[in-house]
Amino acid sequence: MKINVIKVGGAVVENADSLSHLLQRFAQLEGMKILVHGGGRSATTLSEQLGIPTTMVGGRRITDAETLRVVTMVYGGLVNKQIVTALQALGINAVGLTGADLNCIQAIRRPIRDGIDYGYVGDVYGVNAEILRLLLTQGIMPVIAPLTHDQQGQMLNTNADTIAAEVAKALAQQDEVTLTYCFEKKGVLSDPNDEDSVIPAMDSVSYDQLRQQGVISGGMLPKLDNAFSAIRAGVQRVVITSATTLGDQQGTIIS
Amino acid sequence: MKINVIKVGGAVVENADSLSHLLQRFAQLEGMKILVHGGGRSATTLSEQLGIPTTMVGGRRITDAETLRVVTMVYGGLVNKQIVTALQALGINAVGLTGADLNCIQAIRRPIRDGIDYGYVGDVYGVNAEILRLLLTQGIMPVIAPLTHDQQGQMLNTNADTIAAEVAKALAQQDEVTLTYCFEKKGVLSDPNDEDSVIPAMDSVSYDQLRQQGVISGGMLPKLDNAFSAIRAGVQRVVITSATTLGDQQGTIIS
Repeated sequence: MKINVIKVGGAVVENADSLSHLLQRFAQLEGMKILVHGGGRSATTLSEQLGIPTTMVGGRRITDAETLRVVTMVYGGLVNKQIVTALQALGINAVGLTGADLNCIQAIRRPIRDGIDYGYVGDVYGVNAEILRLLLTQGIMPVIAPLTHDQQGQMLNTNADTIAAEVAKALAQQDEVTLTYCFEKKGVLSDPNDEDSVIPAMDSVSYDQLRQQGVISGGMLPKLDNAFSAIRAGVQRVVITSATTLGDQQGTIIS
Repeated sequence: MKINVIKVGGAVVENADSLSHLLQRFAQLEGMKILVHGGGRSATTLSEQLGIPTTMVGGRRITDAETLRVVTMVYGGLVNKQIVTALQALGINAVGLTGADLNCIQAIRRPIRDGIDYGYVGDVYGVNAEILRLLLTQGIMPVIAPLTHDQQGQMLNTNADTIAAEVAKALAQQDEVTLTYCFEKKGVLSDPNDEDSVIPAMDSVSYDQLRQQGVISGGMLPKLDNAFSAIRAGVQRVVITSATTLGDQQGTIIS
């Protein structure tokens, strides 16, 4: 089977107009598809309203018990259900999932590293590809929130990029998988000041060259490391593109 | 197929100990089962923390746009995922659903009646029994939050007792369904001051008599009306019992 795994970031899903636009594009994509969404700022906003301090380390949210409640409400409830309800209105039979639902994504609580305790943050160790395939073959589209569980009763906050990559890798054992990361740029840029300088294609050789030349740096590196790890694990291609051009065969194609 | 539809109220799920106790009993019930949960006070608590006024009319929450966000977060996110995560730890392959997920429960926004606008509150008009059966036959247990949708992109707040009754009725078209309402009493009491005065069995004739004699009144009447409406629609029996004795063949059995 051909399966599209698409990750959309927090900023896109927080704005009603951009979300609506994205979901319409998404609805038009042919074939089987899985949506993985972030949550981002709306969790920070709710935390602020509730007087819960937000602590980020290296772009990752330190998730204490109170923050876990917030992200469970915002990612698993608000954002996930807004997307599912909107997709149903577009005729797509979506089902919202966290990793606990159907036991679809298992994780362990991240151990303390370099003195940093991330709290209730999960590192994925298993994806139930069979149950996702069952849904897809029934015409059902999973919409996955960035939450996993430890199978011992603990929900865990987990990075959405990572979830998308792990889901794609697990399905790629058997299926032909395209993993698409939608973000605010049109693709990987060769000049960060030129929005149109999209690098159309990249493989591990050209990635190494571009990195050594300093063309690619900063925040793109973890995203691309994720992408190449998916390719090495059998994912057929990874597309990094803008949410506004999803499905247009644009962006950076990694193979 | 024999299917148990079990509704648990808000108070039971808000307390970690009582929830854990209930879910252990629930896990031991044999056969196919569906859990419908309320949310109750935790939504009111979050509303208070966010400065959103809570307005109740006749025991029903007036659901403006802000309140809908709160109940989507609390019922669809926090409470639903706490239950699913706990059930997974007990070895039950649960999946959390709102009515929008899998398009499993459709509703219309309640029209203004007697001058009361309930806001984003849904009256159920359809239950997708086929998709619930598909899950059950795959060994999957639906955990349904008290939220429905209008198929036009709008989530709607919906009474959990009603959802449980409608789900039971829809499945009863084809299956042998027992509907159990768990609440804080051991059953329907003949003397509200005597917790042990449980009426063991009731049919429509004895219900009419007890009502005329004034033995049953107040808050039990809508619950029992719901129960008898389920019986008339083909549900085999309705059990009204305590969450602490679920599965013990205790409580009031309505047929």
